[in-house]
Amino acid sequence: MEKINVMINGLPGKVAKKMAEFAIADHRFNVILFSLTGQEIEDKTITIANLSFELVKPDTRDDKISLIKSRFPFFISIDYTHPSAVNKNAVFYTKNNLPFVMGTTGGDRKQLEQLVKNSSTPAVIAPNMAKQIVGFQAMMEYGANTFPGLFKGYALEVIESHQKGKADTSGTAKAMVGYFNKLGVKFDVNDIQMIREPKIQEEELKIPRSHLKGHGWHTYTLKAKDGSALFEFKHNINGRDIYVSGTFDAVLFLIEKLAKPGESKKLYTMIDVLNKD
Amino acid sequence: MEKINVMINGLPGKVAKKMAEFAIADHRFNVILFSLTGQEIEDKTITIANLSFELVKPDTRDDKISLIKSRFPFFISIDYTHPSAVNKNAVFYTKNNLPFVMGTTGGDRKQLEQLVKNSSTPAVIAPNMAKQIVGFQAMMEYGANTFPGLFKGYALEVIESHQKGKADTSGTAKAMVGYFNKLGVKFDVNDIQMIREPKIQEEELKIPRSHLKGHGWHTYTLKAKDGSALFEFKHNINGRDIYVSGTFDAVLFLIEKLAKPGESKKLYTMIDVLNKD
Repeated sequence: MEKINVMINGLPGKVAKKMAEFAIADHRFNVILFSLTGQEIEDKTITIANLSFELVKPDTRDDKISLIKSRFPFFISIDYTHPSAVNKNAVFYTKNNLPFVMGTTGGDRKQLEQLVKNSSTPAVIAPNMAKQIVGFQAMMEYGANTFPGLFKGYALEVIESHQKGKADTSGTAKAMVGYFNKLGVKFDVNDIQMIREPKIQEEELKIPRSHLKGHGWHTYTLKAKDGSALFEFKHNINGRDIYVSGTFDAVLFLIEKLAKPGESKKLYTMIDVLNKD
Repeated sequence: MEKINVMINGLPGKVAKKMAEFAIADHRFNVILFSLTGQEIEDKTITIANLSFELVKPDTRDDKISLIKSRFPFFISIDYTHPSAVNKNAVFYTKNNLPFVMGTTGGDRKQLEQLVKNSSTPAVIAPNMAKQIVGFQAMMEYGANTFPGLFKGYALEVIESHQKGKADTSGTAKAMVGYFNKLGVKFDVNDIQMIREPKIQEEELKIPRSHLKGHGWHTYTLKAKDGSALFEFKHNINGRDIYVSGTFDAVLFLIEKLAKPGESKKLYTMIDVLNKD
Protein backbone atom coordinates (compact mmCIF):
# COMPACT_ATOMS: atom_id res chain seq x y z
CA MET A 1 0.00 0.00 0.00
CA GLU A 2 1.15 3.50 -0.81
CA LYS A 3 2.08 5.57 2.21
CA ILE A 4 0.01 8.61 3.09
CA ASN A 5 1.93 11.88 3.22
CA VAL A 6 1.16 13.88 6.35
CA MET A 7 2.39 17.27 7.48
CA ILE A 8 2.22 17.77 11.24
CA ASN A 9 1.86 21.41 12.23
CA GLY A 10 2.48 22.78 15.69
CA LEU A 11 6.02 21.58 16.40
CA PRO A 12 7.76 21.97 18.80
CA GLY A 13 4.49 21.78 20.82
CA LYS A 14 3.90 18.72 23.00
CA VAL A 15 0.90 17.29 21.19
CA ALA A 16 2.35 17.86 17.71
CA LYS A 17 5.54 16.16 18.89
CA LYS A 18 3.57 13.17 20.13
CA MET A 19 1.77 12.97 16.77
CA ALA A 20 5.09 13.13 14.90
CA GLU A 21 6.64 10.39 17.03
CA PHE A 22 3.74 8.05 16.43
CA ALA A 23 3.39 8.91 12.71
CA ILE A 24 7.08 8.29 12.07
CA ALA A 25 6.78 4.86 13.67
CA ASP A 26 3.55 4.07 11.77
CA HIS A 27 4.10 2.23 8.48
CA ARG A 28 0.94 3.81 6.98
CA PHE A 29 2.43 7.30 6.95
CA ASN A 30 5.24 9.26 5.38
CA VAL A 31 5.89 12.32 7.53
CA ILE A 32 6.86 15.51 5.68
CA LEU A 33 9.82 17.15 7.40
CA PHE A 34 8.28 20.61 7.62
CA SER A 35 5.98 21.96 10.34
CA LEU A 36 4.07 25.22 10.60
CA THR A 37 4.96 26.98 13.84
CA GLY A 38 4.41 30.32 15.61
CA GLN A 39 6.26 33.53 14.75
CA GLU A 40 7.62 33.65 18.31
CA ILE A 41 9.38 30.25 18.11
CA GLU A 42 13.17 30.76 18.03
CA ASP A 43 14.34 27.32 16.93
CA LYS A 44 14.61 26.78 13.19
CA THR A 45 14.53 23.01 13.34
CA ILE A 46 13.58 20.25 15.74
CA THR A 47 14.81 16.67 15.70
CA ILE A 48 12.39 13.83 16.38
CA ALA A 49 13.43 10.19 16.10
CA ASN A 50 16.62 11.27 14.32
CA LEU A 51 14.67 13.23 11.71
CA SER A 52 15.16 16.98 11.45
CA PHE A 53 12.00 19.02 10.88
CA GLU A 54 12.17 22.54 9.47
CA LEU A 55 9.93 24.91 11.43
CA VAL A 56 7.98 27.21 9.11
CA LYS A 57 6.87 30.58 10.50
CA PRO A 58 3.88 32.58 9.26
CA ASP A 59 6.09 35.12 7.41
CA THR A 60 7.69 32.49 5.18
CA ARG A 61 4.99 29.89 4.84
CA ASP A 62 3.51 31.13 1.58
CA ASP A 63 6.85 30.57 -0.17
CA LYS A 64 7.61 27.31 1.61
CA ILE A 65 4.28 25.73 0.78
CA SER A 66 5.05 26.00 -2.96
CA LEU A 67 8.27 24.09 -2.40
CA ILE A 68 6.50 21.46 -0.25
CA LYS A 69 3.71 21.03 -2.80
CA SER A 70 6.22 20.61 -5.61
CA ARG A 71 7.74 17.72 -3.68
CA PHE A 72 4.50 16.25 -2.29
CA PRO A 73 1.61 16.94 -4.63
CA PHE A 74 -0.82 15.42 -2.14
CA PHE A 75 -0.77 15.31 1.66
CA ILE A 76 -2.99 15.72 4.72
CA SER A 77 -2.21 18.44 7.26
CA ILE A 78 -2.61 17.71 10.97
CA ASP A 79 -3.02 20.81 13.11
CA TYR A 80 -2.04 20.82 16.80
CA THR A 81 -0.93 24.42 17.09
CA HIS A 82 -2.44 27.10 19.34
CA PRO A 83 -5.93 28.54 19.88
CA SER A 84 -4.74 31.88 18.49
CA ALA A 85 -3.61 30.21 15.25
CA VAL A 86 -6.73 28.10 14.56
CA ASN A 87 -8.56 30.51 12.23
CA LYS A 88 -5.50 31.83 10.39
CA ASN A 89 -4.24 28.31 9.77
CA ALA A 90 -7.61 27.24 8.44
CA VAL A 91 -7.51 30.12 5.96
CA PHE A 92 -4.03 28.97 4.91
CA TYR A 93 -5.19 25.36 4.41
CA THR A 94 -8.27 26.21 2.40
CA LYS A 95 -6.48 28.83 0.28
CA ASN A 96 -3.81 26.26 -0.63
CA ASN A 97 -6.34 23.44 -0.95
CA LEU A 98 -4.71 21.36 1.80
CA PRO A 99 -7.14 18.87 3.35
CA PHE A 100 -6.66 19.00 7.11
CA VAL A 101 -7.47 17.57 10.52
CA MET A 102 -7.93 20.35 13.06
CA GLY A 103 -7.16 18.98 16.51
CA THR A 104 -6.40 22.38 18.02
CA THR A 105 -9.10 23.74 20.34
CA GLY A 106 -10.17 27.34 20.75
CA GLY A 107 -10.38 30.18 18.27
CA ASP A 108 -13.61 31.26 16.63
CA ARG A 109 -15.22 27.89 15.96
CA LYS A 110 -18.23 29.21 14.06
CA GLN A 111 -16.03 31.15 11.67
CA LEU A 112 -13.83 28.07 11.28
CA GLU A 113 -16.78 25.87 10.35
CA GLN A 114 -18.23 28.42 7.97
CA LEU A 115 -14.89 28.82 6.22
CA VAL A 116 -14.58 25.09 5.55
CA LYS A 117 -18.21 24.74 4.50
CA ASN A 118 -17.77 27.44 1.86
CA SER A 119 -14.41 26.11 0.67
CA SER A 120 -13.45 23.28 -1.63
CA THR A 121 -11.11 21.75 0.99
CA PRO A 122 -12.41 18.92 3.16
CA ALA A 123 -11.50 18.90 6.85
CA VAL A 124 -12.20 17.01 10.04
CA ILE A 125 -12.67 19.47 12.89
CA ALA A 126 -13.01 18.13 16.42
CA PRO A 127 -12.16 19.66 19.78
CA ASN A 128 -11.66 16.13 21.10
CA MET A 129 -10.01 13.37 19.09
CA ALA A 130 -10.50 10.59 21.65
CA LYS A 131 -12.99 8.37 19.87
CA GLN A 132 -14.45 6.85 23.03
CA ILE A 133 -15.15 10.27 24.53
CA VAL A 134 -16.69 11.47 21.28
CA GLY A 135 -18.86 8.35 21.20
CA PHE A 136 -19.89 8.84 24.81
CA GLN A 137 -20.80 12.47 24.08
CA ALA A 138 -22.91 11.32 21.13
CA MET A 139 -24.74 8.94 23.47
CA MET A 140 -25.40 11.78 25.90
CA GLU A 141 -26.62 14.00 23.09
CA TYR A 142 -28.96 11.26 21.94
CA GLY A 143 -30.31 10.91 25.49
CA ALA A 144 -30.75 14.67 25.85
CA ASN A 145 -32.69 14.89 22.58
CA THR A 146 -34.74 11.73 23.11
CA PHE A 147 -35.59 12.02 26.81
CA PRO A 148 -35.55 15.72 27.70
CA GLY A 149 -36.16 16.20 31.42
CA LEU A 150 -35.20 12.62 32.34
CA PHE A 151 -33.09 13.84 35.28
CA LYS A 152 -35.36 16.70 36.32
CA GLY A 153 -34.92 17.46 40.02
CA TYR A 154 -31.48 15.85 40.20
CA ALA A 155 -28.49 17.76 41.57
CA LEU A 156 -25.32 17.72 39.47
CA GLU A 157 -21.67 17.95 40.49
CA VAL A 158 -18.92 18.23 37.86
CA ILE A 159 -15.23 17.89 38.67
CA GLU A 160 -12.51 18.05 36.03
CA SER A 161 -8.77 17.80 36.56
CA HIS A 162 -6.10 18.74 34.00
CA GLN A 163 -2.37 19.48 34.04
CA LYS A 164 -1.42 22.71 35.78
CA GLY A 165 -0.84 24.62 32.53
CA LYS A 166 -4.42 24.38 31.32
CA ALA A 167 -6.05 27.72 32.10
CA ASP A 168 -9.54 27.33 30.66
CA THR A 169 -12.36 25.02 31.74
CA SER A 170 -12.54 21.65 29.98
CA GLY A 171 -14.45 22.03 26.71
CA THR A 172 -15.72 18.47 27.04
CA ALA A 173 -17.10 19.18 30.52
CA LYS A 174 -18.89 22.27 29.17
CA ALA A 175 -20.41 20.29 26.32
CA MET A 176 -21.55 17.62 28.78
CA VAL A 177 -23.20 20.25 31.00
CA GLY A 178 -25.20 21.30 27.94
CA TYR A 179 -26.56 17.75 27.63
CA PHE A 180 -27.37 17.58 31.35
CA ASN A 181 -29.24 20.88 31.06
CA LYS A 182 -31.38 19.36 28.30
CA LEU A 183 -31.94 16.33 30.53
CA GLY A 184 -33.61 18.68 33.00
CA VAL A 185 -30.72 19.45 35.36
CA LYS A 186 -30.20 23.03 36.48
CA PHE A 187 -26.46 23.68 36.42
CA ASP A 188 -24.22 26.50 35.25
CA VAL A 189 -20.87 25.87 33.55
CA ASN A 190 -19.30 28.28 36.03
CA ASP A 191 -20.02 25.71 38.74
CA ILE A 192 -17.71 23.16 37.15
CA GLN A 193 -14.95 22.43 39.68
CA MET A 194 -11.54 22.82 38.03
CA ILE A 195 -8.63 21.02 39.70
CA ARG A 196 -5.18 22.22 38.58
CA GLU A 197 -3.13 21.70 41.73
CA PRO A 198 -0.75 18.69 41.38
CA LYS A 199 -0.79 17.98 45.13
CA ILE A 200 -4.58 17.58 45.18
CA GLN A 201 -4.48 15.63 41.93
CA GLU A 202 -2.03 13.12 43.31
CA GLU A 203 -3.25 12.84 46.90
CA GLU A 204 -7.01 13.20 46.60
CA LEU A 205 -7.85 12.17 43.05
CA LYS A 206 -5.11 9.47 42.98
CA ILE A 207 -3.89 10.53 39.57
CA PRO A 208 -0.62 8.67 38.83
CA ARG A 209 2.37 10.95 39.35
CA SER A 210 3.62 10.18 35.85
CA HIS A 211 0.47 11.74 34.39
CA LEU A 212 0.25 14.90 36.48
CA LYS A 213 1.73 16.80 33.53
CA GLY A 214 -0.76 15.49 31.01
CA HIS A 215 -4.22 14.20 31.89
CA GLY A 216 -7.93 14.96 31.57
CA TRP A 217 -10.10 13.44 34.29
CA HIS A 218 -13.84 14.16 34.41
CA THR A 219 -16.52 13.06 36.87
CA TYR A 220 -20.22 13.93 36.59
CA THR A 221 -22.41 12.95 39.56
CA LEU A 222 -26.20 13.16 39.51
CA LYS A 223 -28.10 12.77 42.79
CA ALA A 224 -31.84 12.51 43.33
CA LYS A 225 -32.76 15.00 46.01
CA ASP A 226 -34.48 12.36 48.17
CA GLY A 227 -31.32 10.24 48.17
CA SER A 228 -33.00 7.39 46.30
CA ALA A 229 -30.68 7.42 43.30
CA LEU A 230 -27.15 8.35 42.22
CA PHE A 231 -25.76 8.22 38.68
CA GLU A 232 -22.11 8.84 37.96
CA PHE A 233 -20.11 9.02 34.76
CA LYS A 234 -16.33 9.24 34.57
CA HIS A 235 -13.86 9.58 31.72
CA ASN A 236 -10.23 9.69 32.78
CA ILE A 237 -7.54 10.12 30.15
CA ASN A 238 -3.87 9.70 31.06
CA GLY A 239 -1.32 11.25 28.72
CA ARG A 240 -2.06 12.04 25.11
CA ASP A 241 -1.69 8.70 23.34
CA ILE A 242 -5.47 8.27 22.99
CA TYR A 243 -5.68 11.37 20.80
CA VAL A 244 -3.15 9.95 18.35
CA SER A 245 -5.21 7.04 17.07
CA GLY A 246 -8.29 9.25 16.71
CA THR A 247 -6.29 11.78 14.71
CA PHE A 248 -4.87 9.09 12.43
CA ASP A 249 -8.38 7.67 11.90
CA ALA A 250 -9.47 11.16 10.84
CA VAL A 251 -6.60 11.25 8.31
CA LEU A 252 -7.67 7.91 6.83
CA PHE A 253 -11.26 9.15 6.74
CA LEU A 254 -10.24 12.21 4.70
CA ILE A 255 -8.26 10.03 2.28
CA GLU A 256 -11.39 7.95 1.69
CA LYS A 257 -13.56 11.03 1.18
CA LEU A 258 -11.06 12.51 -1.28
CA ALA A 259 -11.12 9.27 -3.28
CA LYS A 260 -14.80 9.90 -4.01
CA PRO A 261 -14.83 12.85 -6.43
CA GLY A 262 -18.56 13.59 -6.30
CA GLU A 263 -18.59 14.38 -2.56
CA SER A 264 -19.76 17.97 -1.98
CA LYS A 265 -19.67 17.92 1.83
CA LYS A 266 -16.47 19.47 3.19
CA LEU A 267 -16.92 19.86 6.96
CA TYR A 268 -16.67 16.69 9.04
CA THR A 269 -16.50 15.92 12.75
CA MET A 270 -15.26 12.92 14.72
CA ILE A 271 -18.84 11.63 14.72
CA ASP A 272 -18.54 11.21 10.94
CA VAL A 273 -15.24 9.40 11.45
CA LEU A 274 -16.83 7.11 14.07
CA ASN A 275 -19.90 6.40 11.93
CA LYS A 276 -17.64 5.24 9.13
CA ASP A 277 -16.33 2.33 11.23
CA MET B 1 -61.21 12.03 36.97
CA GLU B 2 -62.26 8.44 37.29
CA LYS B 3 -59.93 6.32 39.36
CA ILE B 4 -57.97 3.57 37.64
CA ASN B 5 -58.53 0.08 39.05
CA VAL B 6 -55.28 -1.76 39.67
CA MET B 7 -54.65 -5.28 40.92
CA ILE B 8 -51.23 -5.71 42.50
CA ASN B 9 -49.94 -9.26 42.30
CA GLY B 10 -47.10 -10.66 44.35
CA LEU B 11 -48.24 -9.92 47.90
CA PRO B 12 -46.94 -10.47 50.51
CA GLY B 13 -43.65 -9.85 48.65
CA LYS B 14 -41.70 -6.71 49.50
CA VAL B 15 -41.94 -4.94 46.17
CA ALA B 16 -45.63 -5.73 45.70
CA LYS B 17 -46.23 -4.42 49.23
CA LYS B 18 -44.41 -1.18 48.42
CA MET B 19 -46.51 -0.80 45.26
CA ALA B 20 -49.71 -1.41 47.24
CA GLU B 21 -48.76 1.15 49.92
CA PHE B 22 -48.07 3.84 47.34
CA ALA B 23 -51.10 2.99 45.17
CA ILE B 24 -53.45 3.11 48.15
CA ALA B 25 -52.14 6.58 49.00
CA ASP B 26 -52.34 7.75 45.37
CA HIS B 27 -55.62 9.45 44.45
CA ARG B 28 -55.31 8.26 40.84
CA PHE B 29 -55.80 4.61 41.75
CA ASN B 30 -58.37 2.27 43.24
CA VAL B 31 -56.58 -0.82 44.54
CA ILE B 32 -58.45 -4.12 44.16
CA LEU B 33 -58.24 -6.12 47.38
CA PHE B 34 -57.05 -9.36 45.77
CA SER B 35 -53.50 -10.36 44.93
CA LEU B 36 -52.15 -13.37 43.06
CA THR B 37 -49.61 -15.20 45.18
CA GLY B 38 -47.54 -18.39 45.19
CA GLN B 39 -48.93 -21.84 46.06
CA GLU B 40 -46.45 -22.11 48.94
CA ILE B 41 -47.68 -18.95 50.73
CA GLU B 42 -49.50 -19.95 53.95
CA ASP B 43 -51.27 -16.70 54.79
CA LYS B 44 -54.71 -16.25 53.30
CA THR B 45 -54.81 -12.49 53.71
CA ILE B 46 -52.47 -9.58 54.31
CA THR B 47 -53.33 -6.19 55.74
CA ILE B 48 -51.78 -3.05 54.25
CA ALA B 49 -52.79 0.44 55.41
CA ASN B 50 -55.79 -1.06 57.23
CA LEU B 51 -57.00 -2.79 54.08
CA SER B 52 -57.20 -6.59 53.99
CA PHE B 53 -56.06 -8.21 50.75
CA GLU B 54 -57.15 -11.74 49.85
CA LEU B 55 -54.21 -13.79 48.59
CA VAL B 56 -55.17 -15.88 45.55
CA LYS B 57 -53.18 -19.05 44.89
CA PRO B 58 -52.72 -20.69 41.47
CA ASP B 59 -55.18 -23.50 42.23
CA THR B 60 -58.08 -21.15 42.84
CA ARG B 61 -57.31 -18.21 40.61
CA ASP B 62 -59.37 -19.31 37.62
CA ASP B 63 -62.51 -19.20 39.77
CA LYS B 64 -61.54 -16.02 41.62
CA ILE B 65 -60.82 -14.04 38.49
CA SER B 66 -64.42 -14.44 37.35
CA LEU B 67 -65.60 -12.97 40.61
CA ILE B 68 -63.09 -10.10 40.37
CA LYS B 69 -64.03 -9.36 36.77
CA SER B 70 -67.70 -9.29 37.66
CA ARG B 71 -66.95 -6.57 40.21
CA PHE B 72 -64.30 -4.69 38.20
CA PRO B 73 -64.93 -5.01 34.47
CA PHE B 74 -61.71 -3.16 33.72
CA PHE B 75 -58.41 -3.01 35.57
CA ILE B 76 -54.64 -3.09 35.06
CA SER B 77 -52.60 -5.86 36.68
CA ILE B 78 -49.21 -5.04 38.19
CA ASP B 79 -46.92 -8.05 38.52
CA TYR B 80 -44.15 -8.13 41.12
CA THR B 81 -44.19 -11.84 41.85
CA HIS B 82 -41.33 -14.32 41.34
CA PRO B 83 -39.12 -15.32 38.41
CA SER B 84 -40.68 -18.81 38.45
CA ALA B 85 -44.18 -17.30 38.06
CA VAL B 86 -43.45 -14.85 35.24
CA ASN B 87 -44.45 -17.02 32.27
CA LYS B 88 -47.42 -18.72 33.93
CA ASN B 89 -48.81 -15.40 35.09
CA ALA B 90 -48.44 -13.92 31.61
CA VAL B 91 -50.46 -16.84 30.21
CA PHE B 92 -53.10 -16.14 32.87
CA TYR B 93 -53.26 -12.41 32.03
CA THR B 94 -53.49 -12.90 28.27
CA LYS B 95 -56.02 -15.75 28.56
CA ASN B 96 -58.25 -13.54 30.70
CA ASN B 97 -57.52 -10.42 28.64
CA LEU B 98 -56.04 -8.52 31.59
CA PRO B 99 -53.69 -5.71 30.48
CA PHE B 100 -50.59 -5.85 32.67
CA VAL B 101 -47.33 -4.29 33.74
CA MET B 102 -44.69 -6.98 34.26
CA GLY B 103 -42.13 -5.69 36.74
CA THR B 104 -40.94 -9.14 37.76
CA THR B 105 -37.54 -10.17 36.39
CA GLY B 106 -36.46 -13.62 35.27
CA GLY B 107 -38.35 -16.42 33.60
CA ASP B 108 -38.19 -17.11 29.88
CA ARG B 109 -38.23 -13.55 28.50
CA LYS B 110 -38.39 -14.55 24.83
CA GLN B 111 -41.40 -16.75 25.42
CA LEU B 112 -42.97 -13.95 27.47
CA GLU B 113 -42.54 -11.42 24.67
CA GLN B 114 -43.77 -13.80 22.01
CA LEU B 115 -46.86 -14.62 24.06
CA VAL B 116 -47.85 -10.96 24.40
CA LYS B 117 -47.08 -10.17 20.75
CA ASN B 118 -49.43 -12.93 19.61
CA SER B 119 -52.15 -12.04 22.11
CA SER B 120 -54.82 -9.37 22.14
CA THR B 121 -53.71 -8.10 25.59
CA PRO B 122 -51.39 -5.10 25.78
CA ALA B 123 -48.58 -5.14 28.34
CA VAL B 124 -45.56 -3.16 29.43
CA ILE B 125 -42.70 -5.54 30.13
CA ALA B 126 -39.55 -4.15 31.69
CA PRO B 127 -36.98 -5.77 33.93
CA ASN B 128 -36.28 -2.30 35.36
CA MET B 129 -38.94 0.31 36.07
CA ALA B 130 -36.59 3.14 37.13
CA LYS B 131 -36.99 5.66 34.32
CA GLN B 132 -33.51 7.13 34.62
CA ILE B 133 -31.91 3.70 34.41
CA VAL B 134 -34.08 2.79 31.44
CA GLY B 135 -33.09 6.06 29.74
CA PHE B 136 -29.43 5.39 30.43
CA GLN B 137 -29.82 1.88 29.00
CA ALA B 138 -31.39 3.37 25.87
CA MET B 139 -28.38 5.66 25.51
CA MET B 140 -26.07 2.67 25.81
CA GLU B 141 -28.11 0.74 23.27
CA TYR B 142 -27.92 3.68 20.88
CA GLY B 143 -24.14 3.79 21.33
CA ALA B 144 -23.83 0.04 20.80
CA ASN B 145 -25.84 0.17 17.58
CA THR B 146 -24.26 3.37 16.26
CA PHE B 147 -20.62 2.79 17.19
CA PRO B 148 -20.04 -0.97 17.33
CA GLY B 149 -16.51 -1.75 18.44
CA LEU B 150 -15.96 1.68 20.04
CA PHE B 151 -14.39 0.12 23.14
CA LYS B 152 -12.56 -2.70 21.38
CA GLY B 153 -9.55 -3.79 23.39
CA TYR B 154 -10.88 -2.36 26.65
CA ALA B 155 -11.13 -4.52 29.77
CA LEU B 156 -14.45 -4.44 31.60
CA GLU B 157 -15.25 -4.93 35.28
CA VAL B 158 -18.85 -5.13 36.49
CA ILE B 159 -19.78 -5.05 40.17
CA GLU B 160 -23.38 -5.16 41.34
CA SER B 161 -24.61 -5.13 44.90
CA HIS B 162 -28.12 -6.04 46.01
CA GLN B 163 -29.83 -7.02 49.25
CA LYS B 164 -28.89 -10.43 50.62
CA GLY B 165 -32.10 -12.12 49.48
CA LYS B 166 -31.55 -11.57 45.76
CA ALA B 167 -30.26 -14.85 44.39
CA ASP B 168 -29.88 -14.13 40.68
CA THR B 169 -27.54 -11.73 38.89
CA SER B 170 -28.88 -8.23 38.23
CA GLY B 171 -30.90 -8.24 35.01
CA THR B 172 -29.86 -4.65 34.34
CA ALA B 173 -26.19 -5.57 34.65
CA LYS B 174 -26.72 -8.43 32.19
CA ALA B 175 -28.45 -6.14 29.71
CA MET B 176 -25.61 -3.61 30.05
CA VAL B 177 -23.03 -6.33 29.38
CA GLY B 178 -24.89 -7.01 26.13
CA TYR B 179 -24.34 -3.39 25.08
CA PHE B 180 -20.68 -3.49 26.09
CA ASN B 181 -20.24 -6.66 24.02
CA LYS B 182 -21.62 -4.82 21.00
CA LEU B 183 -19.24 -1.98 21.76
CA GLY B 184 -16.42 -4.45 21.23
CA VAL B 185 -15.69 -5.54 24.80
CA LYS B 186 -15.12 -9.22 25.47
CA PHE B 187 -16.92 -10.04 28.69
CA ASP B 188 -19.11 -12.88 29.89
CA VAL B 189 -22.13 -12.28 32.15
CA ASN B 190 -20.75 -14.96 34.45
CA ASP B 191 -17.89 -12.60 35.27
CA ILE B 192 -20.25 -10.04 36.81
CA GLN B 193 -19.22 -9.67 40.46
CA MET B 194 -22.27 -10.11 42.70
CA ILE B 195 -22.04 -8.62 46.19
CA ARG B 196 -24.68 -9.93 48.60
CA GLU B 197 -22.81 -9.76 51.92
CA PRO B 198 -24.08 -6.88 54.12
CA LYS B 199 -20.71 -6.47 55.87
CA ILE B 200 -18.89 -5.86 52.57
CA GLN B 201 -21.72 -3.65 51.34
CA GLU B 202 -21.54 -1.40 54.36
CA GLU B 203 -17.79 -1.34 54.96
CA GLU B 204 -16.33 -1.45 51.46
CA LEU B 205 -19.04 -0.09 49.18
CA LYS B 206 -20.25 2.43 51.81
CA ILE B 207 -23.89 1.58 51.24
CA PRO B 208 -25.99 3.26 53.97
CA ARG B 209 -27.01 0.77 56.64
CA SER B 210 -30.67 1.74 56.22
CA HIS B 211 -30.57 0.49 52.62
CA LEU B 212 -28.72 -2.79 53.10
CA LYS B 213 -32.08 -4.58 52.89
CA GLY B 214 -33.10 -2.92 49.64
CA HIS B 215 -30.68 -1.49 47.10
CA GLY B 216 -29.29 -1.98 43.61
CA TRP B 217 -25.83 -0.53 43.07
CA HIS B 218 -24.03 -1.07 39.76
CA THR B 219 -20.56 -0.01 38.61
CA TYR B 220 -19.16 -0.67 35.14
CA THR B 221 -15.47 0.16 34.63
CA LEU B 222 -13.79 0.12 31.22
CA LYS B 223 -9.99 0.31 31.09
CA ALA B 224 -7.78 0.70 28.04
CA LYS B 225 -5.13 -2.00 28.25
CA ASP B 226 -2.28 0.52 27.97
CA GLY B 227 -3.65 2.49 30.93
CA SER B 228 -4.34 5.56 28.82
CA ALA B 229 -8.08 5.72 29.49
CA LEU B 230 -10.72 4.74 32.03
CA PHE B 231 -14.47 5.11 31.63
CA GLU B 232 -16.83 4.38 34.50
CA PHE B 233 -20.60 4.36 34.80
CA LYS B 234 -22.52 3.97 38.06
CA HIS B 235 -26.19 3.73 38.90
CA ASN B 236 -26.92 3.31 42.58
CA ILE B 237 -30.51 2.93 43.71
CA ASN B 238 -31.43 3.04 47.42
CA GLY B 239 -34.71 1.47 48.44
CA ARG B 240 -37.50 0.78 46.01
CA ASP B 241 -39.35 4.09 45.79
CA ILE B 242 -37.86 4.89 42.37
CA TYR B 243 -39.54 1.81 40.86
CA VAL B 244 -42.97 2.90 42.05
CA SER B 245 -43.31 6.02 39.93
CA GLY B 246 -42.03 4.19 36.85
CA THR B 247 -44.57 1.42 37.38
CA PHE B 248 -47.42 3.88 37.80
CA ASP B 249 -46.31 5.71 34.63
CA ALA B 250 -46.51 2.37 32.82
CA VAL B 251 -50.08 1.87 34.12
CA LEU B 252 -51.11 5.31 32.82
CA PHE B 253 -49.40 4.52 29.51
CA LEU B 254 -51.47 1.34 29.12
CA ILE B 255 -54.67 3.23 29.90
CA GLU B 256 -53.85 5.67 27.10
CA LYS B 257 -53.09 2.88 24.66
CA LEU B 258 -56.32 1.07 25.54
CA ALA B 259 -58.26 4.25 24.84
CA LYS B 260 -57.11 4.06 21.22
CA PRO B 261 -59.05 1.12 19.76
CA GLY B 262 -57.14 0.83 16.46
CA GLU B 263 -53.80 0.08 18.13
CA SER B 264 -52.49 -3.32 17.02
CA LYS B 265 -49.18 -3.26 18.93
CA LYS B 266 -49.40 -5.16 22.19
CA LEU B 267 -45.87 -5.46 23.56
CA TYR B 268 -44.38 -2.31 25.10
CA THR B 269 -41.25 -1.55 27.12
CA MET B 270 -40.32 1.31 29.44
CA ILE B 271 -38.68 2.99 26.44
CA ASP B 272 -42.15 3.38 24.95
CA VAL B 273 -43.35 4.82 28.25
CA LEU B 274 -40.42 7.29 28.33
CA ASN B 275 -40.87 8.34 24.70
CA LYS B 276 -44.44 9.25 25.48
CA ASP B 277 -43.32 11.97 27.90
